[in-house]
Formats: sequence, structure tokens, C-alpha cells
Amino acid sequence: MLDKKDYIIKQLHRTHNKKFENYVITRIWHQLNDLNIKIITQQYIVRPTGYALADLYFPQFNLVVEVNESYHLNQTELDNIRANDIVNAVNFEVKVIDASKDIESIHKQIDDLVLYINTLKEKGFEPWDYENEFDNKKYVDKGYIDAAENALFCKSVDAYNCFGNDARALMRGGAPHKYIDNVNIWFPKLYHDGDWNNDISLDENTIYESNNNPDKNEKALKEWLSTKRNIRYVFAQSKDNLGRTLYRFMGEYTLDKEKTKEEKKAVWQRTNTKVKTLKYKNKNDN
Amino acid sequence: MLDKKDYIIKQLHRTHNKKFENYVITRIWHQLNDLNIKIITQQYIVRPTGYALADLYFPQFNLVVEVNESYHLNQTELDNIRANDIVNAVNFEVKVIDASKDIESIHKQIDDLVLYINTLKEKGFEPWDYENEFDNKKYVDKGYIDAAENALFCKSVDAYNCFGNDARALMRGGAPHKYIDNVNIWFPKLYHDGDWNNDISLDENTIYESNNNPDKNEKALKEWLSTKRNIRYVFAQSKDNLGRTLYRFMGEYTLDKEKTKEEKKAVWQRTNTKVKTLKYKNKNDN
Repeated sequence: MLDKKDYIIKQLHRTHNKKFENYVITRIWHQLNDLNIKIITQQYIVRPTGYALADLYFPQFNLVVEVNESYHLNQTELDNIRANDIVNAVNFEVKVIDASKDIESIHKQIDDLVLYINTLKEKGFEPWDYENEFDNKKYVDKGYIDAAENALFCKSVDAYNCFGNDARALMRGGAPHKYIDNVNIWFPKLYHDGDWNNDISLDENTIYESNNNPDKNEKALKEWLSTKRNIRYVFAQSKDNLGRTLYRFMGEYTLDKEKTKEEKKAVWQRTNTKVKTLKYKNKNDN
Repeated sequence: MLDKKDYIIKQLHRTHNKKFENYVITRIWHQLNDLNIKIITQQYIVRPTGYALADLYFPQFNLVVEVNESYHLNQTELDNIRANDIVNAVNFEVKVIDASKDIESIHKQIDDLVLYINTLKEKGFEPWDYENEFDNKKYVDKGYIDAAENALFCKSVDAYNCFGNDARALMRGGAPHKYIDNVNIWFPKLYHDGDWNNDISLDENTIYESNNNPDKNEKALKEWLSTKRNIRYVFAQSKDNLGRTLYRFMGEYTLDKEKTKEEKKAVWQRTNTKVKTLKYKNKNDN
């Protein structure tokens, strides 16, 4: 298991091939000089205008830093983009450091950014709890889980256990909700994986599910149209920038049966970004 | 011509393949936060015990920083080492940052180092004058040039002009001193280059010069033993860690004719580390 030191050093090391980016990103980190602040380098983000790769991302502050300008992804990168963990950056703030300027100017820009982040810190923020950041307890305690909060899990069973379960492991791509008849908890890969084609719209409000094999698709179509479990809590499976598997909560999606029939693929529409969580009840509890 | 920004960023970028070293070195630099301090990364140094590669070198403070332990050079690196600019580190201070410790400890070690360098700064130091650091004017003005001061030149003509000359260019590997009959100013490569074998002892007090071709060596031997110019001011030609040609002043060396006869190669013994410089005198001057 990666410790905090390795995590930080690996994040910074991801910039190593780009010398100006490495200079700027390491300077921001070292000048911030606060182990309570989490950083992610080269984080995929989705904006209303498309996908992008952010040089530095501060999840605690909804803040993205670009060195020079945004990096535009090429088609090959776009084809497989959903294999990566992606942050929805609709409400993000983006700061740009212009590294083409002289060194005094670069330092001044970074000084200003660090001052700005310090003002954000003073307004209050949750310190980075590296050991427990993927823990499900906080969501169970709060009583809900919200896609806007960047809810991430390392194991699908931890997400599953947010809904009144106490399972040790979960080997499947989904499981029925223990207490709600029409809900499945789903851990899809939102990209083409073998014969399964899952796609998500740019606004993340619609998920399409189909199979390349016509027989399998036909069989799946029958199941989709006849199922009582027409709601899914979606935890998208992906890899983060260090290659670790992550499950990101996307929201509650409801099957649009009309469109499913029409398009011959399951069409899931997001009906909520927030769902209720449940404490596990031991049968001996009253 | 490399500017200060490119120089610094290239120096730091040389650590990019080693992630812990990159973390430590960039942190030291960014925390020092002083553009008056010069740094050189991966600087070859010579110590009484042999050659080594220093992770970070502060020429203004005679200070070397090692991340973890000294890097031991392998034989291939040792064979060609004198093609690189090498600092004589006899009187250097060496500080070690142990990057195997946890991140809080690494930060603490670097904080301590930065505090220490700040105390050295307070004792007084010559700010890094990037544009003029290879300028010969300071040596001419002082009236001497000292090997202990890391006297470096970009062009051999700049070294040559320290001795009363005003030449535009110098195409040869050496030239006679304008005012001292028995002195040559010499710009040797202190390594094997073509048929010429130049070697310098570890303590830098002896230079050996010979030719692989027996006829050429015989001819050279005659010249050495009959020359009146039995003293050389030596400026070793090498490449710095960014691939730039440099001439480093090594001192005044005197031909040991007995040993030269004995060993059938020129044996130059260092007789001074400091020599007089001379201002150029225009013939119209009085």
C-alpha cells in the first residue's frame, strides 16, 4: 500500500518529462508546504466543452492549475479516456501559470497562487486524511452520498456497504440494494471493454449500455425491459493516474425504457446526484 | 545563449529520472527561494578518496548536498571522467539528506539545511551574477587568478586575455605568454583524446602528457626537453553538466625534466595554484 510520501512523490514525478511543468508544480507544492493539502497531477477532467488534462488539481478547493494553457487531448487519448478516473469540473476554478515568462514573473505568479490558496485554507477546509480518504464510514455517518463531493472508493465492496451491508468482498459488477426493491448498485466500466460498450455523455447525465454481440445484446435487451430493478446507483470503475483502481460515485440513474426500446441499448438517465446511505443493522440489534 | 531561467530549470531537470532526488533538490531550491544563489546538480567532484558525483553543489558556499549517500561511479564513468568539468572538493562541506525517512523527516532535514544556508548567506557571499560569471574582467582587476576560486571561462580567449592580451579569438590549444618568456598558456583536455593521452593525478598536482604514436611521442619528447617555455598556466577544457564547453583554471605547472626523460612522457608538476594576471596595455598608453 502506497504511503503518503510515496503518493506525493509519485504525483510530482508524473510531471518529470516536462521541465517547465515540473518546475512550476514542484514550486507550488514546496511553497504551499502543507501536508494537509492533497494534490493530483495530470488529472483528467470533464468540462462542458469536453475532456481535458489538468496539470495540477486540488480536490479540497475545486481548483485546477494549468501550466501555460490547457492540454488538448488527441483522438487516441479521447477513445480510451473513460478508463481513467475523471473529475467533473463544471464548477471548478482554473488558474493559469504562464511559464513562458521570465523566472521572476513565474515566481511572482506562483507566490500569488500560494497566497490565494492560503486564503481558501483560512475559509476552512477538511485536512487531507490520507489513510481514510477512501473510507466509506463518512458517507454512512452522514446518511447520504453525493456525486458533487468526489466520493471515491478503492474497493467496490466499500461502496456496496454504504447501503446497509456488511460484506467482506464483492466479486461481481453489481449487486441488488438490500432494502430497495428496484435498485441495483452498479460498478460499470464506462468505456468499451470486451463486447460490452458502455458510454457516458459529456454532461454525465446519460449512460448507454450495449453488447457488440447481437445475440447477447438481444438477451440483455429483454432483461432490461422486463427488470423491476430499473434504478441504478452508479460507481464508475476506472484507474487513477497512479494506476490504482477507483470507484467514483456518479449518481442515481433510471432506465428510460422508451429510449432503450428505440435505440436497442439500455439508456440510463441520471435522476439524482445524491442518494441515501444506510447503516448496517445486525440482526441482534433492535 | 542559455538564460538564467533556462539554466535553473535545466539544472533541476537533470534530476528528473530519480524521483526522490528530484523531490529533495526542487524542495531545497524552492525553499531557498533566492535567485542570487547558484546551483549545479550532478556535479563531478574530486575528493582525496576519489571521484564522485554530487547531487547538488553550491559553488558560492563550498557546499555539496547528497541525497542519501554519495553516488559511486562505475569504471566506464571513471574512464572518461575528465571530459567533464570537475570541482576539487577537498575543502568542501558535505550535507546528506536521508530520503529514506518519512516525509515529515525529509521536510525537517531540508528546513534545517535551508536555515543553515541562510546563516552562510548572512556571513556574506557574492550574489550570483549570471550574465558575467564567466567574464575575465574580475580576474584582471584583482591582479591574480586562483584555482581555489573556481575560475571558469567559456572561451579560451577569455582566459588568454587575462595575461595582457586583447585577442578576438584563439584557435589553438595553447599560446605563449606575452610578457613571460618561459610561460605558455595551455588549454588541455585532461583525458585521452585521439592519440594524445593527457592524465591528471587525483590530487591534481601532476599532469602527464604523451602520444600513442611512438614517432609523434619521440618528437614531442625532444620538444619538451629542449623548450624554454617550461611553465604552463593550465586551463583544463571540459564540458559542464549542460554540455557547455568550459575552461577551468588549474594552476601553474612546471615541467619536471628528469621525470619526463625517465617516463618518456611530459610530467608537469603544479608549482602554484595562483598566478598573476595583467591588464591589456594599448601601445598608445603611457
